[in-house]
Amino acid sequence: MFMSDTRTNAGVDNISSFRKMYTWERPGDRIITLLSAGNLATTQTVVSMLEERHKTTEERDPDIYEVPSMFKAAKLVGDTVRSVIREIADGGGFKSEASFGATFILGGQIAGGETRMYLIYPEGNFIEATDDNPFFQIGEHKYGKPILVRAYDPDMSFEEAAKLLIVSFDSTLKSNLSVGLPLDIQTYVSNSLERGAERRLMASDPYYQEISEGWSEALREAFQRLPNYEGLYKSNS
Amino acid sequence: MFMSDTRTNAGVDNISSFRKMYTWERPGDRIITLLSAGNLATTQTVVSMLEERHKTTEERDPDIYEVPSMFKAAKLVGDTVRSVIREIADGGGFKSEASFGATFILGGQIAGGETRMYLIYPEGNFIEATDDNPFFQIGEHKYGKPILVRAYDPDMSFEEAAKLLIVSFDSTLKSNLSVGLPLDIQTYVSNSLERGAERRLMASDPYYQEISEGWSEALREAFQRLPNYEGLYKSNS
Repeated sequence: MFMSDTRTNAGVDNISSFRKMYTWERPGDRIITLLSAGNLATTQTVVSMLEERHKTTEERDPDIYEVPSMFKAAKLVGDTVRSVIREIADGGGFKSEASFGATFILGGQIAGGETRMYLIYPEGNFIEATDDNPFFQIGEHKYGKPILVRAYDPDMSFEEAAKLLIVSFDSTLKSNLSVGLPLDIQTYVSNSLERGAERRLMASDPYYQEISEGWSEALREAFQRLPNYEGLYKSNS
Repeated sequence: MFMSDTRTNAGVDNISSFRKMYTWERPGDRIITLLSAGNLATTQTVVSMLEERHKTTEERDPDIYEVPSMFKAAKLVGDTVRSVIREIADGGGFKSEASFGATFILGGQIAGGETRMYLIYPEGNFIEATDDNPFFQIGEHKYGKPILVRAYDPDMSFEEAAKLLIVSFDSTLKSNLSVGLPLDIQTYVSNSLERGAERRLMASDPYYQEISEGWSEALREAFQRLPNYEGLYKSNS
């Protein structure tokens, strides 16, 4: 399951909405979904280059519709982002590559292989999700991590997982302007080799509002039920 | 109320425990508490310089026991941290001042003035806590912010506030190695002009364990009670 927000900003006075989830699909053969975080010019260029390579069909450049495995797909995205960042940074003579940085989550399945998920760094290298580390977050991830750490369960249904991701995003939405609704959700059922359910959750969505308000209320209640710290005025000995 | 952890690290294989809370007190006249985050060499040098200035009593340097107001105390700390960082960075010819950075929370009261709290940046400038922005966090603050945003209430008792800070720190402790027990807690009752209750909470503390386990359990229960997202497989129209 994937979820991404749509907020981009160049300063808090210049906020727009852009989709950060891209899917390449050929039912029965492959479905590859890419989530992006970081510099929008970089992420859009990376996605455009992946698209272009498919259209031009020059043989020297690998094509995301032709790579034989998810590992090769991750390598393709990693090579692309590294070259994009290097070109911008070198071309302008800019010292810092950090400001053009972008990070990606790539997941999906290609016929003949397993379902895989990778976290791809701006340097082009990547790591794979495992049973020990079953989820990835990119972008503004810290606010939303505590509930993932505590409530994630590998046996969750998609409906529960969607709830968890919404709660996690909502914690970030409440703390940080750089993340904003709507949220894009996509599911993938292993070995189906086709796109699963997809939704775009708007701020006006009654379920989103129920979760957002319900979770605030539930947290406050849970907090109230915990015992207060009575040790403050006891002697230290 | 102040709370700080004690973890410092130079890489995850070099972790130690240092107090990050310092108090200058002259009962009836002033109590000034400083919390630090960032480069340990910088923060210790800042604290040592503040101490030294008191001992040497040279008139040209202001002394934290002599400054007439909390505002002047914040300015003194700000000027000190800026000069410490500049000296290290310039002296070594290092380009980046960021790696020597340190951030502080300064709070307390000086006779004749109100209780005040400031957040002091590595650049030496500072902001003051207000009713709109009643708490500050420094260091690894993002994981612990969502519960503060949701559960903070200006009418909380010290016992509830201690519980809130422990829950907030615990969210960070569960997500990030760079924060670690024990936790130092200090309270101050406005206009008392003396140190309030103080505790050091060890990992073995039964209350800490009760909160840490209780909060995980409470979060999971609260999460379970929220309705699952049933919209995934409805039509998009």
